[in-house]
Amino acid sequence: MHFPEKKGVDNSMDKTIISGWETVRFEGESASIEKETIAVEYPLTIVVNGQEFATMVCTPTHLQGLLVGFLASEGIIRFYDDITSLSIDEDRGFAYVDIKRSIEVVDQDHSKRFIGSCCGKSRQFYFKSDVQTAKTVMSKLTINAHQCLSLMDQLQSQSQFFQKTGGVHNAALCTVNDVLTVRTDIGRHNALDKIYGHILEHRVPLKDKLITFSGRVSSEVLLKISKMGIGILISKSAPTDLALNLANDLGITVAGFVRGNKMNVYTHKHRIIEANKVNLQ
Amino acid sequence: MHFPEKKGVDNSMDKTIISGWETVRFEGESASIEKETIAVEYPLTIVVNGQEFATMVCTPTHLQGLLVGFLASEGIIRFYDDITSLSIDEDRGFAYVDIKRSIEVVDQDHSKRFIGSCCGKSRQFYFKSDVQTAKTVMSKLTINAHQCLSLMDQLQSQSQFFQKTGGVHNAALCTVNDVLTVRTDIGRHNALDKIYGHILEHRVPLKDKLITFSGRVSSEVLLKISKMGIGILISKSAPTDLALNLANDLGITVAGFVRGNKMNVYTHKHRIIEANKVNLQ
Repeated sequence: MHFPEKKGVDNSMDKTIISGWETVRFEGESASIEKETIAVEYPLTIVVNGQEFATMVCTPTHLQGLLVGFLASEGIIRFYDDITSLSIDEDRGFAYVDIKRSIEVVDQDHSKRFIGSCCGKSRQFYFKSDVQTAKTVMSKLTINAHQCLSLMDQLQSQSQFFQKTGGVHNAALCTVNDVLTVRTDIGRHNALDKIYGHILEHRVPLKDKLITFSGRVSSEVLLKISKMGIGILISKSAPTDLALNLANDLGITVAGFVRGNKMNVYTHKHRIIEANKVNLQ
Repeated sequence: MHFPEKKGVDNSMDKTIISGWETVRFEGESASIEKETIAVEYPLTIVVNGQEFATMVCTPTHLQGLLVGFLASEGIIRFYDDITSLSIDEDRGFAYVDIKRSIEVVDQDHSKRFIGSCCGKSRQFYFKSDVQTAKTVMSKLTINAHQCLSLMDQLQSQSQFFQKTGGVHNAALCTVNDVLTVRTDIGRHNALDKIYGHILEHRVPLKDKLITFSGRVSSEVLLKISKMGIGILISKSAPTDLALNLANDLGITVAGFVRGNKMNVYTHKHRIIEANKVNLQ
């Protein structure tokens, strides 16, 4: 059985990136405004037999394949023919699947997707539980570009574990000058959760703190930073568009690709001292 | 409130790696047996108010911080004092937390952890749904080292998207000579699910197929490969110990760090032709 793909849904690469994100790029002593290309992170909510089953974030190509593979991975279907109907509303980010057998989908309200009626620059995306706990960060902390690079250097030099085995991530709670607490994990999110747990357990005051991170800045990472109440996130890796839109909403400064003497500042640039001096359009 | 950490639980690095994994290392024309160091992937099942809440995999350091941070991230607690008791059974990989308010934990049997009574080399770890769907792969496919390197080259050269934005992963369905179907996603698992969906939808015969992958080989990745029924996984990145133990159990050949003219073969080495010629101890 083949279900017709929705007309207009192609699998070209151009939905997978957004171009022209206004970024302050630092390289050595120079700073300039550049239009950067950012990977799209697309939320897809899957409704099985009329009930909300899961929301995943993905790159919006081959959505039907993703849906079928995800349901098989989760043990919901075994064969393609277990699916009796399938349609994808790509604009709203919802997929509707009917399968032969009934499944027990549980009504876990807090993990349901929340789509606000009022959207600013972009369609907003949160889980219901995030709506309650993600908070706009009002931090007045500022840092200069040299300090950002130096903190990332410190984080890297403390991650010998990575060099030995590959494939682990580091997160650190820092002041503008010092790395205070480093946590390492094979999971990006776990490294951040370990920091979050440390903050809660020891009631660490956050006014003068920021976070450095080795991993990609996805929406989930950004929401964690917001829940912690941290205003500056410095990452070695790339951000997604959804994370940057959330960062704009939630008042968080995101710097990415912080490597050697280079760094990109994507959002709330006022907290990076030199970024204020660059002539923003 | 501070809960005593279990005696003997320290946070040293030596639980985070295993040493001495017998690996065939290829470099150019030479092949040798090396003892490699592998990152540990540790399953931790969290029981909240007496009910199984979630199983996560992590690096086994700072488990208490991870637990507290995870519960806060999930919106289960807001403050450390919301926790009335907390204990971690590190040997069995279970954490028991009581919190003040009652939470709705849903009895989703398929996502519960399954710990078999019979453990081979290592404690086995599956979800209940995986016990039914993960299958031992009997593939008779073989490949030579040069073909492995060439497939990874082909995958890399097709991933211009990565170069533009950073931070996406590629998975490809291949024969020993050709990359057939490439899927790209910001999520490692999604890239594989897109391949899995493609296989199911088009009923692709798998006898002569293998998968190349840019991402780290975790237990979840390995279980997906097993569900697809693929016998050879070639990754640019590092594997975890849990993934390799599962690969040993499930009959899957894992090659990792496949970069340039180098590659490590970790499990079921008989499918890599030259690995048979290396004098295994």
